[in-house]
Amino acid sequence: MIKRVSYNPKIDTGAVVQQIEPTASLPYFTIEDGSFRYPMNDRTRVYGLGEQVRGINKRGWIYRSYCTDEPFHTEDKSSLYGAHNFILIDDGAVRFGAFFDYPTRITFDIGYTDPAMLTVTPETMELELYIIEGDTPTEIVRRFRSLIGRSYIPPLWAFGYGQSRWGYADRDDIRSVADSYRDAHIPMDMIYLDIDYLDNFKDFTVSPERFDRFPSFVSEMKERGLRLIPIIDAAVKREEGYRVYDEGHARGYFCKGRDGEDYIVGVWPGMSVLPDFLNDDAAAWFGSQYRTLTEMGIEGFWNDMNEPALFYSEQGLKEAFAALHTYEDTELNAFTCFRARETLNRLANSDDDYQSFYHRTPAGSIRHSEVHNLYGYRMTKSAADALKECRPGQRSLLFSRASYIGMHRYAGIWTGDNHSWWSHILLLLRQLPSMNMCGFLYTGCDLGGFNGNCTRDLQLRWMSLGVFTPLMRNHAAAGTRSQEAVAFGDTEAFRHIIELRYRLIPYLYSEYMKATLRDEMLFRPLVFDYPDDSRAVEIEDQLMLGSSLMIAPVYVQNADGRMVYLPEPMTMVRMHEDYISTEELSSGDHYIPVPLGDVVFFIRSGALMPLADAAMTTAEIDLDSIVLLGTGRAYELYADDGISPDISEKNITILRQHDAAPRPAF
Amino acid sequence: MIKRVSYNPKIDTGAVVQQIEPTASLPYFTIEDGSFRYPMNDRTRVYGLGEQVRGINKRGWIYRSYCTDEPFHTEDKSSLYGAHNFILIDDGAVRFGAFFDYPTRITFDIGYTDPAMLTVTPETMELELYIIEGDTPTEIVRRFRSLIGRSYIPPLWAFGYGQSRWGYADRDDIRSVADSYRDAHIPMDMIYLDIDYLDNFKDFTVSPERFDRFPSFVSEMKERGLRLIPIIDAAVKREEGYRVYDEGHARGYFCKGRDGEDYIVGVWPGMSVLPDFLNDDAAAWFGSQYRTLTEMGIEGFWNDMNEPALFYSEQGLKEAFAALHTYEDTELNAFTCFRARETLNRLANSDDDYQSFYHRTPAGSIRHSEVHNLYGYRMTKSAADALKECRPGQRSLLFSRASYIGMHRYAGIWTGDNHSWWSHILLLLRQLPSMNMCGFLYTGCDLGGFNGNCTRDLQLRWMSLGVFTPLMRNHAAAGTRSQEAVAFGDTEAFRHIIELRYRLIPYLYSEYMKATLRDEMLFRPLVFDYPDDSRAVEIEDQLMLGSSLMIAPVYVQNADGRMVYLPEPMTMVRMHEDYISTEELSSGDHYIPVPLGDVVFFIRSGALMPLADAAMTTAEIDLDSIVLLGTGRAYELYADDGISPDISEKNITILRQHDAAPRPAF
Repeated sequence: MIKRVSYNPKIDTGAVVQQIEPTASLPYFTIEDGSFRYPMNDRTRVYGLGEQVRGINKRGWIYRSYCTDEPFHTEDKSSLYGAHNFILIDDGAVRFGAFFDYPTRITFDIGYTDPAMLTVTPETMELELYIIEGDTPTEIVRRFRSLIGRSYIPPLWAFGYGQSRWGYADRDDIRSVADSYRDAHIPMDMIYLDIDYLDNFKDFTVSPERFDRFPSFVSEMKERGLRLIPIIDAAVKREEGYRVYDEGHARGYFCKGRDGEDYIVGVWPGMSVLPDFLNDDAAAWFGSQYRTLTEMGIEGFWNDMNEPALFYSEQGLKEAFAALHTYEDTELNAFTCFRARETLNRLANSDDDYQSFYHRTPAGSIRHSEVHNLYGYRMTKSAADALKECRPGQRSLLFSRASYIGMHRYAGIWTGDNHSWWSHILLLLRQLPSMNMCGFLYTGCDLGGFNGNCTRDLQLRWMSLGVFTPLMRNHAAAGTRSQEAVAFGDTEAFRHIIELRYRLIPYLYSEYMKATLRDEMLFRPLVFDYPDDSRAVEIEDQLMLGSSLMIAPVYVQNADGRMVYLPEPMTMVRMHEDYISTEELSSGDHYIPVPLGDVVFFIRSGALMPLADAAMTTAEIDLDSIVLLGTGRAYELYADDGISPDISEKNITILRQHDAAPRPAF
Repeated sequence: MIKRVSYNPKIDTGAVVQQIEPTASLPYFTIEDGSFRYPMNDRTRVYGLGEQVRGINKRGWIYRSYCTDEPFHTEDKSSLYGAHNFILIDDGAVRFGAFFDYPTRITFDIGYTDPAMLTVTPETMELELYIIEGDTPTEIVRRFRSLIGRSYIPPLWAFGYGQSRWGYADRDDIRSVADSYRDAHIPMDMIYLDIDYLDNFKDFTVSPERFDRFPSFVSEMKERGLRLIPIIDAAVKREEGYRVYDEGHARGYFCKGRDGEDYIVGVWPGMSVLPDFLNDDAAAWFGSQYRTLTEMGIEGFWNDMNEPALFYSEQGLKEAFAALHTYEDTELNAFTCFRARETLNRLANSDDDYQSFYHRTPAGSIRHSEVHNLYGYRMTKSAADALKECRPGQRSLLFSRASYIGMHRYAGIWTGDNHSWWSHILLLLRQLPSMNMCGFLYTGCDLGGFNGNCTRDLQLRWMSLGVFTPLMRNHAAAGTRSQEAVAFGDTEAFRHIIELRYRLIPYLYSEYMKATLRDEMLFRPLVFDYPDDSRAVEIEDQLMLGSSLMIAPVYVQNADGRMVYLPEPMTMVRMHEDYISTEELSSGDHYIPVPLGDVVFFIRSGALMPLADAAMTTAEIDLDSIVLLGTGRAYELYADDGISPDISEKNITILRQHDAAPRPAF
């Protein structure tokens, strides 16, 4: 059912956890000129590739797995932050999955050059290729997921709502965010700390001016039911006297240039060095630094800038200024002026730099560009391994920007620096099932958009999808318009939506647990559940969520509703600002009015879903308040403590419909 | 019905052609702190603003009229190439139009800052404000259009298909484009010449190496039924010995800096000067230069770079390099490195430059930044006025990138440098009715996208909307993937779609004529025709086209069809690759299969539309071949010669259904 064909990989990526004996014969693909080729017919659909641009069906574009700090997630891009080399091919008759376990650049031309040809081209023919067969897409995904190992399980509180912003400058800023939510009676579990909390952007420090007495501040927040979640960047400031730099430098734990010296790159702290996460000792050492913060009471982290993103390098800057001198000395025309401009613009994330530093791996010294896609994964694994030791018997929140398959066992991902664009609601929806296929279940996007300015209606509509994503975080860049739930005035609609999130948590958490323990997808394209429905095949703006729900968010500005396709009769649940209504709908197309602020979802025939009372934090969710909606007879609810790592099927409580009928409040 | 309130305008923009006595009292708006404010209710929709980003209903964003060479048409932008200050406000009970006749920056905050407030803020309180009342949106538009004068009418051949590309380097490139279309039996009327044809990017020259014996080449193409349409850029290369520069310089026709010398800017030719189109003599002189090309047989032009786009200026470049020296001399950190980078990036279209040169207008010397939005308009008017003299008794093709209301009387516009993005199919659809409201009827976009790489399916779907736009042009940037109809192999689907265009021309041309002569919109939002239909109000992916049709293009990759809403029973016409079928559909929602390559449209109840046989050029369209589709009784067909400027209602021929019934071929 799973075939492994081995093409002399240079390094074990760690993506796969099953031992599979290699076979010599490669099914489905032919190999030509260093590319794997598979002819597609008119009905062939190609799913997968995780965090990428474009549709759920990836056909019609060329994608490249190469972890990239890409701030414009437009449809013409080929790489975002993750490298998720799993594809699932299905033409209704033939279907199989393929995982290209390869640590650097690999291109998936899915009908771009030739609409009828799938061509996968690694930079070099040094990889493991796994072919996964099965009778259904769901079965193929389950087998693939079992190949790569159980997905990360966060603590229950990580399903709460989190507020974040690059620019919360000090404790008073954080306190006033907390106050504003409390005053508006809007639930919240987490406030995130972006690079502002650091002392001069130095990892594992806390600004002594703006966040002094940090442990007591962490406790103060914790007493209010709020956890602080700090950011950790990949690079370490080059500064003598800064303990982390001194230690790492002395032990040779940073990536080296051709000259054997630490390779110097520019990121937020200015000139910095890159921990060698592909070296086990260096990784363990970096991971151990997280203890600085866990000892202050911190229980979760987000790892950033770990593609690694490089703004410039010492070497690149020198060359750029030299080039600018020659431009200065000639009369520029349009073309030379553009080239002069590019001299500085192309300093960021430059291939020259990625080819100029080295890792000391168990397999010997390897140039970074050959293992680029593993960097964020290994950084995050180092954190996860260390957190297991720092916080024994407890789950930690951990997610990363860069990733590779394998990292899904250790952490979640967020989808990076999106924009306050309506089209990015739909991008999130389409990324969710793709990321789930590749093992990443704890995921979500910056609700309201990171870059650019958000409007009230955009934030409300976006959150109406965000209530369903495991990671529900509102985050924005410095200099953009405030987009907190309290920022637009008239907070009632926001309170309603975020309260709904908390009412959904028993369902979301239970379904998340089932998806991890059973190697299933939390979010699925409709066609995975209704493979014989020809309409379902092309629906890319609705999703199945867990065992019971279908969702269909509004993603068009000024629309008061939308068309929704029901592949079977379903119960429509409408969460108005002040009451809930249900309606039985027949299968087929329906125009569903969804006024701004309402959330609508659909319960499958014969299914149930639990809904709790609203709560101000996850800790306050009262499982005794649960009611069951829908037409089913029983629901499996995960009733573990939500913290301890002891997870198993025995934590399931079976709720039956008569145990918890809708109460008069409905 | 039209009220004019005058706030001491500095200059007559020329937008308006009716004399209206000013009144003192301003209805609807209040004025506060230099802004016009109008409170919106939940049902208020705001239409207009012409060529802009976002929806047909502009509510929920902040727009700024400021002609800008903006290469990324994402939804977070506030300015594109045009400045079209007409808005139409309608809440179902109260409706009116407002035209802010103002030659520079003016901001329309349509529920961005406060979702319930429309705020219009000119830079200074020096404008004419026209309030237009009427019982319906259609009536308000008609009155506004009559206020600003009859829209430009192109020759009939301008409704043909045109192929363009930045990068057709010489005559052989052009010939091979012509050959490839002929060999594939794909109709075409025009090939466009981008800046490649020029001698060192100098206006009104032709490269002696690559396009020598140009008049005979123009004739050669004309004999093949193809017209060459060259580009003209706004700026003139500063080069002594170049006649146009020498003449303009000697006569003082270029914009001057504060020092009274020609202001030097950098565009395609390198250091260049800006003709002072706001000076009547300079404008007439520049217009007269077009004769150079009309005497070589040229019958149409596109005016570009006339926002004016500036890549840099002599002054700006000097300051930038000085700033870079100081950056070079310090150890950069992330923030200073970004600022260094911005030093060069912000040279383009810099406000510093727009504030540094002057026009000699009839109202005296005016700084460019105070009349910025008139520049492209006046350039294009200068061309139109001259073409009337150079080509007496004949219509010319003329369209521009930058524009202001008023220019619509002289030329069309194309929507500038879009991208090969699926979302830009929908952007075009939404811009069409908005541009029509503002008088711009001859318009279209770069089909397949200017920037970025196009795929076969994207080009086919885009063209399936493009067949309906008056300007139907395939254009792309240098360095992008070829996207001609013959570039993707399997040309039959392209031939089918472009042939359909030619079959539609009798309808498109007739409806275009009616729209110009009757001050109507060619493309209308559904709600304009069905004001009492609550569903029609929010439909922004279908349009009414002329008197008989509704269109609903597919704009989602890998979709094989789409939902279409019919506000009344209609006849669906399906143009398959090899036959046509019709089907009567009831009102309501329908899932319409539209396989790639098919074009589907809808004929209104009681309406007819003429369809001709396919033809290889517009000249070969056989009006005797026309059949009438639909359930109406008569159709008004424009049967003028398509060239002579003598346009009137008497050119209409009434076709009756029994005159031209579907023939067996259907």
